[in-house]
Amino acid sequence: MFELDPRLQNDTITLGDFPLCRLLLMNDATYPWFILVPQRDDLQEIYQLSNDDRKQFWEESNRLSLWMERFFKFDKLNIAALGNLVSQLHLHHVGRRVGDPAWPNPVWGHSAAVPYTAMEIEKLYQVVQIEFVDLSRVDN
Amino acid sequence: MFELDPRLQNDTITLGDFPLCRLLLMNDATYPWFILVPQRDDLQEIYQLSNDDRKQFWEESNRLSLWMERFFKFDKLNIAALGNLVSQLHLHHVGRRVGDPAWPNPVWGHSAAVPYTAMEIEKLYQVVQIEFVDLSRVDN
Repeated sequence: MFELDPRLQNDTITLGDFPLCRLLLMNDATYPWFILVPQRDDLQEIYQLSNDDRKQFWEESNRLSLWMERFFKFDKLNIAALGNLVSQLHLHHVGRRVGDPAWPNPVWGHSAAVPYTAMEIEKLYQVVQIEFVDLSRVDN
Repeated sequence: MFELDPRLQNDTITLGDFPLCRLLLMNDATYPWFILVPQRDDLQEIYQLSNDDRKQFWEESNRLSLWMERFFKFDKLNIAALGNLVSQLHLHHVGRRVGDPAWPNPVWGHSAAVPYTAMEIEKLYQVVQIEFVDLSRVDN
């Protein structure tokens, strides 16, 4: 039974489930920042995914990336699976802008998160439901 | 005509060419650290790869990851496409150990590289040629 790591749960807003991955919004309005978490038990590394799951994982990452590129303005997309602090496999997608607080360094550990307002979250939630029709609702 | 970014060229040792990507060894013995660079012109983002190239890209990343997991001892593999400093699309694979100099933070920009000795480079070069039989030689 898939359970999201408590730290990821705490730092993010759940937007829904793709066929494989849970889609999370990092609760930091500083950057457009989304995270995919495969709903599989005991996974730490991408190479531990089955071949089929790995294809699906990158497919979902690609759909998310293409939408982010259309919806947000950014100069560079940072995609990363680090997991040094939270070992549950998760893939960051962070839209970076020249001159953003951490630019050109990585965003992790750089500055305190700026939480979204309830209205901003609701708007992003609705946009994502419309964009990804196969995203299943998750009751938080 | 594919040309490696001069900064990547300067910071790495070329190990050979997979069907799609050039395989580079980051010249920093602090971490097992390899980089894949698709041999395509004017690419900055993974989502700019064609569908076929993207599949091949992740396939080569997976082969590299599985070999790194067998050959090196590490606790976590960091895989990342950042590109804030070098915009040419390149994918980092960094084996991380609990207690390594940057742990648990990201390695980028953390500490000065510790160059490999000529003998260490030669050994890794030979190991990689034996492991990946389809790796083409690149004349530096």
